[in-house]
Amino acid sequence: MPETRPASSPAHAHAQGPVRGNDYEAHFQGALARLHGERRYRVFADIERIAGRFPIANWRRPDGATSEITVWCSNDYLGMGQHPEVVAALTDTARRCGVGAGGTRNIAGNNSPLVDLERELADLHGKEAGLVFTSGYVSNQAGISTIAKLIPDCLILSDAFNHNSMIEGVRHAGCEKRIFRHNDVAHLEELLIAAAGRNVLIAFESVYSMDGDVAPIGAICDLAEKYGAMTYLDEVHAVGLYGPRGGGMAERQGVMHRVDVIEGTLAKGFGCVGGYITGSAALCDAVRSFAPGFIFTTAIPPAIAAAARASVRYLKRSNGEREAHQRQAAATKRALEEAGLPVLATETHIVPVMVGDAELCKAAADHLLERHAIYIQPINYPTVPRGTERLRITPSPFHDDARIATLTAALVETWDTLDLPRAGTVFAQAAE
Amino acid sequence: MPETRPASSPAHAHAQGPVRGNDYEAHFQGALARLHGERRYRVFADIERIAGRFPIANWRRPDGATSEITVWCSNDYLGMGQHPEVVAALTDTARRCGVGAGGTRNIAGNNSPLVDLERELADLHGKEAGLVFTSGYVSNQAGISTIAKLIPDCLILSDAFNHNSMIEGVRHAGCEKRIFRHNDVAHLEELLIAAAGRNVLIAFESVYSMDGDVAPIGAICDLAEKYGAMTYLDEVHAVGLYGPRGGGMAERQGVMHRVDVIEGTLAKGFGCVGGYITGSAALCDAVRSFAPGFIFTTAIPPAIAAAARASVRYLKRSNGEREAHQRQAAATKRALEEAGLPVLATETHIVPVMVGDAELCKAAADHLLERHAIYIQPINYPTVPRGTERLRITPSPFHDDARIATLTAALVETWDTLDLPRAGTVFAQAAE
Repeated sequence: MPETRPASSPAHAHAQGPVRGNDYEAHFQGALARLHGERRYRVFADIERIAGRFPIANWRRPDGATSEITVWCSNDYLGMGQHPEVVAALTDTARRCGVGAGGTRNIAGNNSPLVDLERELADLHGKEAGLVFTSGYVSNQAGISTIAKLIPDCLILSDAFNHNSMIEGVRHAGCEKRIFRHNDVAHLEELLIAAAGRNVLIAFESVYSMDGDVAPIGAICDLAEKYGAMTYLDEVHAVGLYGPRGGGMAERQGVMHRVDVIEGTLAKGFGCVGGYITGSAALCDAVRSFAPGFIFTTAIPPAIAAAARASVRYLKRSNGEREAHQRQAAATKRALEEAGLPVLATETHIVPVMVGDAELCKAAADHLLERHAIYIQPINYPTVPRGTERLRITPSPFHDDARIATLTAALVETWDTLDLPRAGTVFAQAAE
Repeated sequence: MPETRPASSPAHAHAQGPVRGNDYEAHFQGALARLHGERRYRVFADIERIAGRFPIANWRRPDGATSEITVWCSNDYLGMGQHPEVVAALTDTARRCGVGAGGTRNIAGNNSPLVDLERELADLHGKEAGLVFTSGYVSNQAGISTIAKLIPDCLILSDAFNHNSMIEGVRHAGCEKRIFRHNDVAHLEELLIAAAGRNVLIAFESVYSMDGDVAPIGAICDLAEKYGAMTYLDEVHAVGLYGPRGGGMAERQGVMHRVDVIEGTLAKGFGCVGGYITGSAALCDAVRSFAPGFIFTTAIPPAIAAAARASVRYLKRSNGEREAHQRQAAATKRALEEAGLPVLATETHIVPVMVGDAELCKAAADHLLERHAIYIQPINYPTVPRGTERLRITPSPFHDDARIATLTAALVETWDTLDLPRAGTVFAQAAE
């Protein structure tokens, strides 16, 4: 989409700021100018999805006009956000209990639907307890840091590709950390051997969101057991999507019971909002009792908790969405590969189509939106390394074969028009 | 309420954890045992508020039975969480757009109701722009840290009573900080003089939630202008509640235009969930662009954004709730004072009744709930200093005179039964 006037030009000249000597405003404007200069300034597409017609959304264009687009980059992977049972749980509960929780969990905000949701999540992952946070980001940030702080002289071993929220959790733990090469079990073992006798927390993800690859969860659990380490697994891109009951990649691989802490989100596969951890009763109770980011924040609304629980319960018993999801993801990959587009091979539902240049990546996204009414957000640095810029496509059960054909034709036209690299190109991470 | 079996006793003996040498579980159990030993272990009341009948809620007792209680400690200060326009905005938008936003703000989650909400909040505070976060906690943590990092060699001057979320924001900023004595303008000026020539961010609150006192906002702005500092004001316990349009205490005092950044919440006076900052367009755009806790988290759901906007819009035009709120808060204070209860004098809607002992405070709350079906959460260390434990009562427009009389009688009976300190007692912070 076209960039509108930089937000650094005040839109409302009537708004008054204080008068003073130091020019703070210049620092913010300068930071934005640097982003523009590096072509990293992000413009958010202003969209409104249409329940019952996912993946269609209304796009409110910068000029104010509205037009329909097809969303191909949502993390509401199964379209559960529009599921009638999920929407009904939200609206029924809001009519019964109102909107907000009205307080922190400790002070008047601990609503029954949220208590029930935590039980549901504990059951989903076969753990003793669950603990819900306002977001997956906070669940990692508060969860990892609090767990590590409660373990004496804890060493955190963290996968090199861990999400920013995990990195922040590790950082806030304030303890020693070592990074192991992405999904590299041999390197992890080296670090475990070097840490012999110490308390160790291994933090990793099951499905990595940008490359769509999968961790060797069982092998990591083998090492954890061998060397007496504890495991913390982020399943945000897998819960609801994998496993017979939607318990995630660990459930699918039959190793869920071997992982100490499973972290997940209610905002992707389950189509709502919020994050959680599950684990032993003592662990969850300790995080509940000691994590400032949990203690001092308003509980999620009862209606949101009820909607999320409805989604979790539904996906425990229904495999149809998971099957359709995998089928359409595979069909999308196949169609794009057959068209000669540079699809990154993945084991999962995530379909990265490589571009390898920030400006071209943004140009491709703009072209797709304006010319084809297809919305795929460009993924640039710092979300991925420079040189590996991409379009990240997330097919859902509602992206049917006709839509896949339309997408393929649109991408081919875009690749032709912008002369973008084809399948067979090597996309290497640029030297920083 | 009675404490149920400590959560450290596994409730589900069938759930299996890994076998290993290191006993991580013991660390979590030990931390919980320490809390129990210090009488600081918190039990959450499991409640479900009843829309249309606030402040009544269903309490799910530990034995599973349910009974109706009156909530006297909610931060949904005006009962906007049950307002028909707010509930309708939530349910209508969910039916139209589904539940979750489906992505981060950058990737498919930037929904139109949320964009509109940010404009509404900017207008509320007379600022160029607004930026919404998943919670007020995150808005302070991400807002303060990001703003301070963008200002070269920034010194943060922080009020001694600032909320944990602000303290975390200051801590994550990683820059130098100094604490000024609570609401002490002379001390603040000393620190400003000592920082002559430096970039300074003054971080403070308007209404302090536990003592209910108010900052001298205008005097702090005078100093900020005199010494070239920037101001960041947390109005979470004031937005919706004070000022002709609900802009908060700064609006009421006629100084809103002099504050650089106003932070607020959608979860208290507005009865929903989420937090925000408002300020210059460049400042909000820079935080939007640089704050990890904003960038890497799923956007709040369109239905929540629409509900919050409906609440903000309603309270811009309606003063009735604010007037009734102040009237009932004053009536509550008067009734409790006349009954000889140790009410802490406050300028605001917050009514602390002092107990001065953690166990007695919890015993009083348990007694009120079990004997009188009145729910007031005990406020103990670390939320308030030891020796100043209290019941924090928050009357709303829906706590009518009859309920105030019932509350007063219940408190008097409780104070008699437990022989608690009366008005005139001096409650001093215990030495740590």
